[in-house]
Amino acid sequence: MEFPSKLIEEAVNQISKLPGIGRKTALRLVLHLIKDRPENTYALTEALNNLRSRIRFCASCNNISDMELCHICASHKRERSIVCVVEDTRDVMAIENTAQYTGLYHVLGGVISPINGVGPTDLKIDSLIGRLNNGQSQIKEVILALSPTMEGDTTAFYINKRIKDLPLKISVIARGVPVGGDLEYADEITLGRSILGRTLFN
Amino acid sequence: MEFPSKLIEEAVNQISKLPGIGRKTALRLVLHLIKDRPENTYALTEALNNLRSRIRFCASCNNISDMELCHICASHKRERSIVCVVEDTRDVMAIENTAQYTGLYHVLGGVISPINGVGPTDLKIDSLIGRLNNGQSQIKEVILALSPTMEGDTTAFYINKRIKDLPLKISVIARGVPVGGDLEYADEITLGRSILGRTLFN
Repeated sequence: MEFPSKLIEEAVNQISKLPGIGRKTALRLVLHLIKDRPENTYALTEALNNLRSRIRFCASCNNISDMELCHICASHKRERSIVCVVEDTRDVMAIENTAQYTGLYHVLGGVISPINGVGPTDLKIDSLIGRLNNGQSQIKEVILALSPTMEGDTTAFYINKRIKDLPLKISVIARGVPVGGDLEYADEITLGRSILGRTLFN
Repeated sequence: MEFPSKLIEEAVNQISKLPGIGRKTALRLVLHLIKDRPENTYALTEALNNLRSRIRFCASCNNISDMELCHICASHKRERSIVCVVEDTRDVMAIENTAQYTGLYHVLGGVISPINGVGPTDLKIDSLIGRLNNGQSQIKEVILALSPTMEGDTTAFYINKRIKDLPLKISVIARGVPVGGDLEYADEITLGRSILGRTLFN
């Protein structure tokens, strides 16, 4: 693509570095911004600059937070005996949306993935173990709520190995056929696992 | 969606104002920026600020340009007797990519669209007529290369009405079945128009 202006070219280059946005989409966004009022562009860039320079992470659970402790860790209404280990903030938001969980979280900031160069030391695993080993800790159960992928399983396996000797219950979220899904469209692996992992009818 | 931080919420609000980007995609982009190096975010916001504050439009054809005249209007290699009227910069880039056109352009900056509140005075139609009426003008042909939509047709009709008494040839780009397309998959209107607009076999 040949651009009529170096400013456009630079903006397209920067926008198309974002995941899932190609150069054609980037050009569409750039032309939208040029047509739009200048204040809208400045509001966007200010929000992104503030985001990047002022963002903080909860000192306890590593979730994104505006304060020293995130609103979940700081809340008196949450059960302090359970910690749910998740990959990132989106997972916290997804679990919070279910309204089925009242315990605390621990955000790893990723999963072990040798292909992408992410090892155990790049994740907040040591801080999780520190939290569990802390004498004042009331934690009795750790739920491993990682994605049912190769990387998620590897990470769960690694964490389990490191904490299995602590006096804790360690659990993983259930895997099986999705609620509301048609059985005939479930893939073989999920369906097979759901049979192996069957529970008593109550 | 409930966000763990006001900074995230504001950034998601601003990003999701862009066309074709919803709140879920915006959140994905925001979390990507947080994980990424801070310099990348600052490079992005600087490119957008520069774009919006320093962008200029060609004094002659209204195309986006870094200088007083765009590189097409300033070039000595372009034919100065033909002007191709297009909706926006993307159309200029698309036509340039065909390498079939060596004349000049005139960028309207949109098409007449009463639904979106765009009237003839919001477009660069008067400056086109000024260009054609200019005594030193060498223009002998105007090509109307607007989208084959209701709005594009309305705009072409309006421009034709305003310039038809000038000593100029006025043409529109050919409409018909796309090259390489299978005839049976062409829609009825396109196929009908391609029969009505048939040309001599040469």
